[in-house]
Amino acid sequence: MIKITLPDGAVREYREGTSSLEIAKSISEGLARKIIAASVNGEVWDATRPIQTDASLKLLTWNDPEGKSTFWHSTAHLMAEAVESIFPGVKFWVGPAVENGFYYDMDLGDRQITEEDLRKLEVKMAELAAKQNPYIRTSISKADAIHFFQEKGDEYKLDLLEHLQDGEITFYSQGSFTDLCRGPHIPDTGFIKALKLTNIAGAYWKGDEKNKQLTRIYGVSFPSKKELDEYLLMLEEAKKRDHRKLGKEMGIYTTDDEVGQGLILWMPNGTIIIEELEKLAKETEQAAGYHRVVTPHIAKESLYLTSGHLPYYQESMYPPMELDGTKYYLKSMNCPHHHKIFAAEPRSYKELPLRLAEYGTCYRYEQSGELFGLMRVRCLHMNDAHIYCSKEDFAQEFRSVNEMYLKYFKIFGIDKYVMRLSLHDPANLGKKYINEPQLWLETEAMVRKALLESNTPFVEVTGEGAFYGPKIDVQIWSAIGREFTLATNQVDFAQGRRFKLEYTNRENQPETPLIIHRAPLGTHERFIGFLLEHYAGKFPLWLAPQQVKVLPISDKYMEYAQTVLESLKNADIRAAIDDRSEKIGKKIRDTELARVPFMLIIGEKEMDAKQVSVRRQGKGDLGAQELDSFIKELKTEIKLRS
Amino acid sequence: MIKITLPDGAVREYREGTSSLEIAKSISEGLARKIIAASVNGEVWDATRPIQTDASLKLLTWNDPEGKSTFWHSTAHLMAEAVESIFPGVKFWVGPAVENGFYYDMDLGDRQITEEDLRKLEVKMAELAAKQNPYIRTSISKADAIHFFQEKGDEYKLDLLEHLQDGEITFYSQGSFTDLCRGPHIPDTGFIKALKLTNIAGAYWKGDEKNKQLTRIYGVSFPSKKELDEYLLMLEEAKKRDHRKLGKEMGIYTTDDEVGQGLILWMPNGTIIIEELEKLAKETEQAAGYHRVVTPHIAKESLYLTSGHLPYYQESMYPPMELDGTKYYLKSMNCPHHHKIFAAEPRSYKELPLRLAEYGTCYRYEQSGELFGLMRVRCLHMNDAHIYCSKEDFAQEFRSVNEMYLKYFKIFGIDKYVMRLSLHDPANLGKKYINEPQLWLETEAMVRKALLESNTPFVEVTGEGAFYGPKIDVQIWSAIGREFTLATNQVDFAQGRRFKLEYTNRENQPETPLIIHRAPLGTHERFIGFLLEHYAGKFPLWLAPQQVKVLPISDKYMEYAQTVLESLKNADIRAAIDDRSEKIGKKIRDTELARVPFMLIIGEKEMDAKQVSVRRQGKGDLGAQELDSFIKELKTEIKLRS
Repeated sequence: MIKITLPDGAVREYREGTSSLEIAKSISEGLARKIIAASVNGEVWDATRPIQTDASLKLLTWNDPEGKSTFWHSTAHLMAEAVESIFPGVKFWVGPAVENGFYYDMDLGDRQITEEDLRKLEVKMAELAAKQNPYIRTSISKADAIHFFQEKGDEYKLDLLEHLQDGEITFYSQGSFTDLCRGPHIPDTGFIKALKLTNIAGAYWKGDEKNKQLTRIYGVSFPSKKELDEYLLMLEEAKKRDHRKLGKEMGIYTTDDEVGQGLILWMPNGTIIIEELEKLAKETEQAAGYHRVVTPHIAKESLYLTSGHLPYYQESMYPPMELDGTKYYLKSMNCPHHHKIFAAEPRSYKELPLRLAEYGTCYRYEQSGELFGLMRVRCLHMNDAHIYCSKEDFAQEFRSVNEMYLKYFKIFGIDKYVMRLSLHDPANLGKKYINEPQLWLETEAMVRKALLESNTPFVEVTGEGAFYGPKIDVQIWSAIGREFTLATNQVDFAQGRRFKLEYTNRENQPETPLIIHRAPLGTHERFIGFLLEHYAGKFPLWLAPQQVKVLPISDKYMEYAQTVLESLKNADIRAAIDDRSEKIGKKIRDTELARVPFMLIIGEKEMDAKQVSVRRQGKGDLGAQELDSFIKELKTEIKLRS
Repeated sequence: MIKITLPDGAVREYREGTSSLEIAKSISEGLARKIIAASVNGEVWDATRPIQTDASLKLLTWNDPEGKSTFWHSTAHLMAEAVESIFPGVKFWVGPAVENGFYYDMDLGDRQITEEDLRKLEVKMAELAAKQNPYIRTSISKADAIHFFQEKGDEYKLDLLEHLQDGEITFYSQGSFTDLCRGPHIPDTGFIKALKLTNIAGAYWKGDEKNKQLTRIYGVSFPSKKELDEYLLMLEEAKKRDHRKLGKEMGIYTTDDEVGQGLILWMPNGTIIIEELEKLAKETEQAAGYHRVVTPHIAKESLYLTSGHLPYYQESMYPPMELDGTKYYLKSMNCPHHHKIFAAEPRSYKELPLRLAEYGTCYRYEQSGELFGLMRVRCLHMNDAHIYCSKEDFAQEFRSVNEMYLKYFKIFGIDKYVMRLSLHDPANLGKKYINEPQLWLETEAMVRKALLESNTPFVEVTGEGAFYGPKIDVQIWSAIGREFTLATNQVDFAQGRRFKLEYTNRENQPETPLIIHRAPLGTHERFIGFLLEHYAGKFPLWLAPQQVKVLPISDKYMEYAQTVLESLKNADIRAAIDDRSEKIGKKIRDTELARVPFMLIIGEKEMDAKQVSVRRQGKGDLGAQELDSFIKELKTEIKLRS
């Protein structure tokens, strides 16, 4: 018998060779029907794979990220089967799951694949899926595997085999298709109830443009038709809400070839949003006892050797400028500069936790192919702060930071979010991660404990930590259900020592502070990109670049309209007047299209009564009102950020 | 007879060979006594030098910058005479006037000069000055000049002679001392009524450390004892108000070797001042119809080739970063980025004047020897804006900018200022200045006209313009009378064309806008440095990093003190509590020393009456007051920035 430990700590006994799926069935048939794969001792396995020893087990469904990626990877195999049946002789390279679906790279010889082919493939795949063919895993010797692909004449798989060890090679088969694959896979093709092939692209073999160009087919699949429909609707909506499209239309930002790729020029309307966000951050941080600082964007090489950015982070940094025999680097993070401010004065425990905040501008090198609108850029304005605290203060500070996240999420109507605790990868110690194995484990345990104690939902991922400590990435979902990785919260046990930061503790002894790096609003670039989609450009009143438009029905009322405008401006409301000689209907339509929250219609009646007729974006006519009371209501709504 | 045109346009006739001094005497004996030199056809001459042709004449007194520099340069000669009489065999290099006085570099052989020597020299100089020896100008052939210094054995002057043309060489003599010198000089040594030798330094010959180190003696002189006394008092006061000393004491800023020289790290208290200044600028600019933008700190080489920063401004820029085969530069000015925002959308005359503002951060390369506290730095936060306007709008926009300057001066209590109109130097066209001789003259005339029309006091200086157009430098004087060059206002006829900027004019034709570059508050670095001296660190309430300190008389009143603190914080007043177990007298003294504007004393009486006892920095006890009314008064004072 073997002992299986479930996530709630319960331990159950099963005979050796029981599969996760069988264990699920032993709990409930309904549960078993949802099981896609299983995490066995932290490794994702086929749900059907026999477990031979004691193990910890987490059953994975569509709702787990690993469940989704297993599902999509299995669909890639299904697509390959369909391709092979329609285009015999095709050779396959690799077919991984990606962020939203999967792809497979293949060599179709001289054949060009068409949209029509995709539709044919979809039909074939649905037909094969309906057969509920099981995904069958077999271990195979390297010699037999080579023989198999030599017979098939697939030089790509033979290339992959070259780098694999005998004894570690597995094949997966479903229906008539067999692939060299490490797995895992879903139990059978019947799980795939809905699918869509989304795109055809060219991809050089191994990403090298000197190699042959292969055909890459992208697709996505779901466990029900309903989910596919929702996804397609979301894609459609996301297209309308594309931040690049809205960003241009609304005068939010621009880029310029002579300035450089990934370097955002914020136009007046975007700058208004930036300033409102900074105001929110400043108010929130001031109330939470933060102090603001301002630091330069460059520093000498020696600073980054001290911090460890050189070499651990070098590939993300701009190359140096050489001046007077010294190398200067653009900063890719604000932390080293803040540490220098901590170090500028002798510090006592009485000053701790010391919280230094800056909307700092950092420069990071992203490959030009990776750049994307506001989402992937080279210049980032970061909602940064560093909290220097004692070990005893850590848990409380960490909780306060989490609460700040939640406060922001509420303001922006972000209902769905998840914290992802990113840990170090022991194999990369001294390469990607500071070589302090013991401190890594201690700090990770401390963060995990703080998360558990504060009842924050989180998942753990290995190998995604910052180079100086564990990191919490916060993923949020926009109003239309798209996922964004936004903010981070990091714990740093390394830099305090590297910078020889010290405070005098209660025992009058020097002690090194722990450092929390946090950026709840992420960067202006990514956050405003997110908000554009989230609100479809219809910003709440406090964030809207233009808050009120005054619409005189004709030139006769222009003078009164001007006094209305003046009153609005004096109340610090962002307002303008539509002084075109257009019909009022057109003025209203244009203002709606420009996504201005409020319109004030000014005609004979309003002028005589010294009133304004109020229309609200998306809500229509709200009737006539005294200007003063309207302004008062607006001011309250702006102040509350509701 | 020759015709002499005076500054007011009056023309007088004199016989050929009349000197400026004689002309002055013909006007008034009182005037003549003040004449130090004269500007003849724009060139500064000895007042005693005969004028042979028709000329425009401006008589120069101590109050003219050229008057002062002539006075100080003449004192350098007087010092040389004294040195020679006390240390025979001394050899001289050069002895120019500088910002505040003069120096002379000399080779004293093995002799080390001491403070005591300086006192001896001062006595000697006073004695020689009293002789009222005239400064006598003689033209001399190159051969005779060489002979003279060969006889004297002065290889330094012989080196100078090498680079001079025969026919252009003049000697100046006073008393027993003769020097190779272009002049001009004051009429006689009797003008020098008070002097002080201020400093001894080493200086490599020709500034090259491979050469011999010469002795440099600094001094300053005045036409009256009273002015010297005032100057020494001002120096004493300036030392106490030194922004580097106050900046450290008050936690305003720091620098760090690992970050780099001239790169300011703004500490929390400095950042508060920065944010208050930015708030002032934003409010003022918003009211004046400016739009804010945010731009990155780097751009590609091609942008700066378009703008002309490369090559015209290259020596002030950081070296490039090479990335993907492209050179990126740190921006030394914000203008090119703003031009790109102008160019990002089609523009109509209806949008003009378009005013784009940004507190932009620029990087400029200053020699490390030139760096000085906050005054000369390598990273500058600039109160920048660019106004794109038509030629017709220019005068009005220019006046509005001037008015903004004056508004700021009033807020900061800057009573003394002067505008310096800096023009191009025709000899440097195509080198330091865009090669557009006609446009230079036109634009300069336009600016001069606008200055005259707005009755702004200004002086003109040749060869100090920006590379793209004429510039107005604004010089201001601090409360203790020290001069600072602060802000600039520039007119740019070149970059609009270089960037192909266009708007559609009323005639529906494309037209290039004129551009005004302006920065009334200069840079945070220099302006805060100025303010530290101006206020001696005792900032007005609205700017003070800490506005109120709550001083409980003993721990018994701590709880009430805390509620007072909370009320202050809720009213957005920067306040803290002095919770040390110190006597109230010491708490008050320490708070005075920390330059906090208000103290609230909290004791039995105050607690029982729910009041606070108010003390104001420098004014002492103001009596007890209800907390609410105190807060209300403070809020008003802060809002009014009074």
